[in-house]
Amino acid sequence: MADPPLRSSYGLHQPYALRNVIELESDDNVVGIAETYGGDEQAEALETIREQVVGVCPYRLTGNLSPMVEGGAAGVERSQTYHVPGENPLDADARTYAAIETACLDLIGKSVGKPVCDLIGGRVLEKVPFSAYPFYKHAGGGGEGKDSRLDEYGEALTPGSLVDQVKQMRKKYGFSSIKFKGGVLEPEVEVETMRQLRLALGPAVPLRIDPNCAWSVNTSVKVGCGLTDELSGGGYLEDPCVGLDGMAKVRQQLMADGIDIPLASNVAVTSFGDISEAVRLDAVQVVLCDHHYWGGMRQVQQLARVCKTFDIGLSMHSNSHLGVSLMAMAHVASATPHLTYACDTHYPWQSVEDEIIEGGRVPIVDGCVEISEKPGLGVTLDADKLERGKERFRNCSYRKRDDEAEMQKHIDPNWTRKLPRW
Amino acid sequence: MADPPLRSSYGLHQPYALRNVIELESDDNVVGIAETYGGDEQAEALETIREQVVGVCPYRLTGNLSPMVEGGAAGVERSQTYHVPGENPLDADARTYAAIETACLDLIGKSVGKPVCDLIGGRVLEKVPFSAYPFYKHAGGGGEGKDSRLDEYGEALTPGSLVDQVKQMRKKYGFSSIKFKGGVLEPEVEVETMRQLRLALGPAVPLRIDPNCAWSVNTSVKVGCGLTDELSGGGYLEDPCVGLDGMAKVRQQLMADGIDIPLASNVAVTSFGDISEAVRLDAVQVVLCDHHYWGGMRQVQQLARVCKTFDIGLSMHSNSHLGVSLMAMAHVASATPHLTYACDTHYPWQSVEDEIIEGGRVPIVDGCVEISEKPGLGVTLDADKLERGKERFRNCSYRKRDDEAEMQKHIDPNWTRKLPRW
Repeated sequence: MADPPLRSSYGLHQPYALRNVIELESDDNVVGIAETYGGDEQAEALETIREQVVGVCPYRLTGNLSPMVEGGAAGVERSQTYHVPGENPLDADARTYAAIETACLDLIGKSVGKPVCDLIGGRVLEKVPFSAYPFYKHAGGGGEGKDSRLDEYGEALTPGSLVDQVKQMRKKYGFSSIKFKGGVLEPEVEVETMRQLRLALGPAVPLRIDPNCAWSVNTSVKVGCGLTDELSGGGYLEDPCVGLDGMAKVRQQLMADGIDIPLASNVAVTSFGDISEAVRLDAVQVVLCDHHYWGGMRQVQQLARVCKTFDIGLSMHSNSHLGVSLMAMAHVASATPHLTYACDTHYPWQSVEDEIIEGGRVPIVDGCVEISEKPGLGVTLDADKLERGKERFRNCSYRKRDDEAEMQKHIDPNWTRKLPRW
Repeated sequence: MADPPLRSSYGLHQPYALRNVIELESDDNVVGIAETYGGDEQAEALETIREQVVGVCPYRLTGNLSPMVEGGAAGVERSQTYHVPGENPLDADARTYAAIETACLDLIGKSVGKPVCDLIGGRVLEKVPFSAYPFYKHAGGGGEGKDSRLDEYGEALTPGSLVDQVKQMRKKYGFSSIKFKGGVLEPEVEVETMRQLRLALGPAVPLRIDPNCAWSVNTSVKVGCGLTDELSGGGYLEDPCVGLDGMAKVRQQLMADGIDIPLASNVAVTSFGDISEAVRLDAVQVVLCDHHYWGGMRQVQQLARVCKTFDIGLSMHSNSHLGVSLMAMAHVASATPHLTYACDTHYPWQSVEDEIIEGGRVPIVDGCVEISEKPGLGVTLDADKLERGKERFRNCSYRKRDDEAEMQKHIDPNWTRKLPRW
């Protein structure tokens, strides 16, 4: 789908975000669907297990494939510091398993007439809260040539324009939490952006800032000290610096100053293998789950239990995605009692033209996605819209997410991702 | 059901072991069943939530009731040191939830024609291994008066007769792991029993000993040092002494002597709230799960993930039970990849006369319970046999498990449970 030129410490979003869509069709013509990371590598990984999938009962398939999420995780070092989510070779199996599990659960739900959340333990929420996800952004709506999209939100490269972007997004969707993507401008500017957000939104709206490891330990501590008020009241400081050791140092120094702002991560902790060290170091107080790369919905529920057991909060990570993923995220969230933060979502950055589900985009009302009584994930594919997406994929040149290359192409030919940058 | 006079550090088994059986009947007359702890307290706890259960979709019920397993667990101190399993007031809600969850899953499975293990993630084992569970035992088969049962195994109060009991049990069921209940005779006698077991069974049979906290730290260390060979090869030393602190000291002292025998527990660790301290102290290397009091099947799967994440092994605890519980244990075990030890079961101590499932006892062949393609738990209630059990319950005087009172009644009027005894 067309994706606007959003900035992060990884670089610049390409004009198209890639997704793979899985359809599992049963003998009695029920179709279970899932959406996952895009590009050739993920498609090939799914093709690799085709023989293990075709002909197998969807109730049995997840058990058969469980070595993909049980094997080798513990103790293996992996991180997304130098890989964007979806491109980390170390969780390739977990991503592939997750896509199959989601499609199986959707298939089962559609076959028995029950929503996915109620197949995996039962909903504890009917309305799942999501966060606004503002980005510093160049002008443009995404897409290329005749396929370029209208720029709904416009450029936002200053504190004031970022605040305007949030207001616009809140007006449309009613979000009551804000996750702000930093790591792009000077830390002082980002601190100022957070202050203006707090002023504009008042004290009741939880704020998060996520610079994706762009800062040194010292800069992270300085920002934390500067944003004590802004990050209090249900907010957190997400992945300010590189690695568990760095996060632990930031935590220690902030706590020594009496500042108990939770540090969150979806970079230093991306698998069960990272958690014991994170606990030992008290490096992370909130883990961001994501069924797409943590190995599926049940693995997220298990992660929730691990976090709860060690008094670690749980939030939810997002990548650019369409409505199938949004509903999967909502279903797992609704059946995960320990997930007490509003989930991230890139959904506002995508458009109705590119949506592939029947009936158009999933409504986000008062910041929430509602879990209905509809079976499975509650959505089905629109064959024409899906074909439109496939056609565009065949015609475009992108096969792998590469924010650095895009940054070099449009902003600065010498740009490389540097950690820490500040 | 009639229960033989088995000994443990808790005292003596009463002539009857009590169980409650739950039936959830759907509008379309499918019946989901579960078996749980017996006696009035458990029955009343189930009655208390009747209004929350009746009329609710079984897919939704577990979500609705999830506060019973989510609330207040973390950090709460609880243990079974001074309560037999099933009588600990601190996990009363988890027990009640587990019974309802099991009955819901059985109902769902029977309604869609799928086995429970495949509803909760999918089987990874078709044949679930169980352990022989030898006890020191007085003469008698259990039951009272005309209801007394034949004494299938006879008295076993010496090393030699205990070995004979194991041989008899292995011949009948083919068990290839042994879990030996100690904490009854002098530690030297129990060490000698373990040595004779190893001699009789050869090196390939994993052996465990469980004195239920009867020993001091020093005695525990002495026994551990004395049983290095006996407990190696997949065995463990289970709950030798009281509490996480005690277990941690035993672990430290054994490791200081170069003895890396895992310590297992279902007494010091009985809830998620115990785990962070157990990890911090390295007090427990194997946790015994039990869906009956850990809050159900999915909670056991979550416990498995917690254990795996912190490199802790997982085994399964048992109480006196009938075939419904055995099948529930087998189903959760078959869908829990990290459960790599053979499960405990008291099933050999119960009789075909007392079984309440249609078709008689669940076969244990080569030490394993087979998971078939039968829907739900794979078993249904025999109404006549269940009525026979109810009738007997009405006529007997037992309403709560009390091994100490039974010990005073038959063996020693002055007997009290003393920890440590040695």
